[in-house]
Amino acid sequence: MRFKFSILALLLEVIIIVLFGIFVEYDTSDVSQTLYPFFQDVHVMIFVGFGFLMTFLKKYGFSSVGINMLIAAFGLQWGTLMQGFWHMERGKIHVDIKSMINADFSTATALISFGAVLGKTSPVQMLILTILEITIFACNEHLVTKTLQATDVGASMTIHVFGAYFGLAVTLVLYRPGLKNKHENEESTYHSDIFAMIGTLFLWLFWPSFNSAIASEPIYQTNAIVNTYYSLAACTVVTFALSSLVDQRGKFSMVLIQNATLAGGVAVGTCADLSIHPFAAVCIGSIAGIISVLGYHFLTPLLASKLNIQDTCGVHNLHGLPGILGGIAGIVVTAVKEEAR
Amino acid sequence: MRFKFSILALLLEVIIIVLFGIFVEYDTSDVSQTLYPFFQDVHVMIFVGFGFLMTFLKKYGFSSVGINMLIAAFGLQWGTLMQGFWHMERGKIHVDIKSMINADFSTATALISFGAVLGKTSPVQMLILTILEITIFACNEHLVTKTLQATDVGASMTIHVFGAYFGLAVTLVLYRPGLKNKHENEESTYHSDIFAMIGTLFLWLFWPSFNSAIASEPIYQTNAIVNTYYSLAACTVVTFALSSLVDQRGKFSMVLIQNATLAGGVAVGTCADLSIHPFAAVCIGSIAGIISVLGYHFLTPLLASKLNIQDTCGVHNLHGLPGILGGIAGIVVTAVKEEAR
Amino acid sequence: MRFKFSILALLLEVIIIVLFGIFVEYDTSDVSQTLYPFFQDVHVMIFVGFGFLMTFLKKYGFSSVGINMLIAAFGLQWGTLMQGFWHMERGKIHVDIKSMINADFSTATALISFGAVLGKTSPVQMLILTILEITIFACNEHLVTKTLQATDVGASMTIHVFGAYFGLAVTLVLYRPGLKNKHENEESTYHSDIFAMIGTLFLWLFWPSFNSAIASEPIYQTNAIVNTYYSLAACTVVTFALSSLVDQRGKFSMVLIQNATLAGGVAVGTCADLSIHPFAAVCIGSIAGIISVLGYHFLTPLLASKLNIQDTCGVHNLHGLPGILGGIAGIVVTAVKEEAR
Repeated sequence: MRFKFSILALLLEVIIIVLFGIFVEYDTSDVSQTLYPFFQDVHVMIFVGFGFLMTFLKKYGFSSVGINMLIAAFGLQWGTLMQGFWHMERGKIHVDIKSMINADFSTATALISFGAVLGKTSPVQMLILTILEITIFACNEHLVTKTLQATDVGASMTIHVFGAYFGLAVTLVLYRPGLKNKHENEESTYHSDIFAMIGTLFLWLFWPSFNSAIASEPIYQTNAIVNTYYSLAACTVVTFALSSLVDQRGKFSMVLIQNATLAGGVAVGTCADLSIHPFAAVCIGSIAGIISVLGYHFLTPLLASKLNIQDTCGVHNLHGLPGILGGIAGIVVTAVKEEAR
Repeated sequence: MRFKFSILALLLEVIIIVLFGIFVEYDTSDVSQTLYPFFQDVHVMIFVGFGFLMTFLKKYGFSSVGINMLIAAFGLQWGTLMQGFWHMERGKIHVDIKSMINADFSTATALISFGAVLGKTSPVQMLILTILEITIFACNEHLVTKTLQATDVGASMTIHVFGAYFGLAVTLVLYRPGLKNKHENEESTYHSDIFAMIGTLFLWLFWPSFNSAIASEPIYQTNAIVNTYYSLAACTVVTFALSSLVDQRGKFSMVLIQNATLAGGVAVGTCADLSIHPFAAVCIGSIAGIISVLGYHFLTPLLASKLNIQDTCGVHNLHGLPGILGGIAGIVVTAVKEEAR
Repeated sequence: MRFKFSILALLLEVIIIVLFGIFVEYDTSDVSQTLYPFFQDVHVMIFVGFGFLMTFLKKYGFSSVGINMLIAAFGLQWGTLMQGFWHMERGKIHVDIKSMINADFSTATALISFGAVLGKTSPVQMLILTILEITIFACNEHLVTKTLQATDVGASMTIHVFGAYFGLAVTLVLYRPGLKNKHENEESTYHSDIFAMIGTLFLWLFWPSFNSAIASEPIYQTNAIVNTYYSLAACTVVTFALSSLVDQRGKFSMVLIQNATLAGGVAVGTCADLSIHPFAAVCIGSIAGIISVLGYHFLTPLLASKLNIQDTCGVHNLHGLPGILGGIAGIVVTAVKEEAR
């Protein structure tokens, strides 16, 4: 049993090597590096952002940043293949900087789910979960963007909502009554909270790149950058305000500052590339902050006690609820645009 | 009283939302992303650089990185409006990547002042200070760059000197004799010193972007990058040398390495975009290192004991003195250029 | 004796200032900033990546990130001069963003060697070692790339192998039997291991920029980015698999995850810009992971006990062996290409 993980991981890497040998080729049609800075920002978010965000638990610090790296490194290869199978030309998957951005995106779903099940799964389980989730994600993404022709530039629905509820479903399946008493592991220390801020800040700072990286035109890309920038700023001010409000002694809650400040990036994702007006961006960010703080304060304890869903990092409040808000905002914006025509 | 901060922060965000609704629009005249990597570097400096630089105090680690985030997120929205009012076209403020860089710049003044008053102010006081300082900064910047037509690409004077002396004035106002005994809070620990190095390094690394981001032509931008790169390198070698020299046992001082190594970026700011020759850049950097180390070693204790100015993070030595050196260097360079004509 | 370091460092900076005054000028022939994001990524690798990678030793945390900064800041000025002397035009060294990338590269050799001798050298010794190593590196690089016309875009041989074996030679010279008992300093703590992951991740994430920064054409640059991305991902999965395999209890080894995951970037360096096919990249990455893990597990203890070579950070396994693999891969690829013609 000791070798189970090693054998599985090596086997998967051999399969990947074989499939790469058969299917993967360079895409030489566009060799410009204009997307490269966007790719690097997303890359930092996936490995440093998600990795360090989960270091706040004092007992899982190293395993969260380590397993995060394992999932992401495996997932980006698997994602390249799964997404590539939907876009093959003459039987070949073509990789370039844009496909690398999409491969990184696909790992985000597994990493969000990892946040819900942190401390309850073994590395073997995480590898299997990653395979399943990225495979389903690639099919779902193809369905949404190609078949339904829906627009979701920042992937509020396809990544954030999908990853959050996938993770919550898994945590429900993994539920065992004994876990309720393991709460002492779910504590943070002074230094682990500062480590987590590294994750928070790199996610927060590079979120405009996440929401704009795959926008189709420069003007939409600039819109997405500007909207995400202001949405996150508004969300942060609201989060600090509400964090102090819901606390008994008026203190700031570290877990809220680490997480709810990011909800503005999720919520503005679906309509980020549209000309929604910076005013709408700060409104969406503010509402996202309110929803996320209330979710952490009231909903998470309820989910754990009533529904046996133990959401370790609170991904429901950071990705689930703000992602749904993003979907609704997208529908409203599109309806208003149609109206205006 | 417990709700004072929450009410103020929410009220300010509502005011911002209203003003955004009335005044702010996208600038669609230039949608190129050439400035975006520069923006992201500055963005990292503001949130990670300034935030972590102040984590060296063992008791203020989390509050410094957290409040830094609050000030910057609020400040960039306020700065957008204050700077925008001076550049309105047909009654509208136009935002794009360049205006986002300027909004980030405006928050730097408040963050520098925060370094001087760290540990002495409440979040409410910091919000009020940020409003005041960014408003005055926007007026002052307009006066210097538009009315006086002075060149200050790296903002040595308009940001660094302004922020430092504003903060010192506030710390003088906030002075209470009892604070003198609170020195035990002003200590660092082993780990808090390594956290602070994260801030130092990201400021140090991206300073070439700070000094070149708003340069008017590619050639001036490249000059600013090259000059800042070499100025900082020279400053660092000199700082290590003098740090060992002024220490009783010849040891390196962590506070000097964390702070004085950055003085070269401040000092070369005003004339960074000019063809001052790389030789001048290494000279300015070396002198900045000398001034900053001597300031930390001799001047800061004097200010505290004689003038009751307790400069928590030593912003006078990192931003004040090197900024003045930058202003002088700018005058000398311009005078020499005039002479040569 | 106390002033030895200060005097040497100041003297060196004065020499640099004089040489800059005589020789260094701006290169105004190409002022585009297309290489600037690549430069910034490399810059972060040198100062944050190498600096934090070595913080895992609990007693050398601050000195490793501090001395790393000193060596790099001094080295980039010295490297500018040493590399510049080989490419002078009309008696002048011309600096621009590309030469800054090369100056940063030259410091990497000294920083790799620093990893081998960490804890055994004084700052004075490190300055002298840096001068020697960068001078020899500049000559060797000129020989390899200009005289032998060899291609080594990611510098597997010229930087990684050279730096590793230079460091191992120095550590052999510095060997004293008493050092064997100082092993208690060579331990990590929980927090120091998380700090080291900051270094690992920034090296891992920006390695595609390292291997592509000086590629001659956009198409080769894109190749190098894609190949390095997949090589590192494959190497990481293999490292986790083998790390668990060689451990008695099947646990992941932190030192392996911090170091061997990076071997894929070194090994793919020499042939990264060629159209080796993504399949070859994942193969090279996987083999690099195997070699590096086996090196850490079997070879390092052997080197220490039999040959008196105490490789503090295991640079032989991270830079030496994977670099040699990179050289062999380069020869094989070139031979196959010749064959195919």
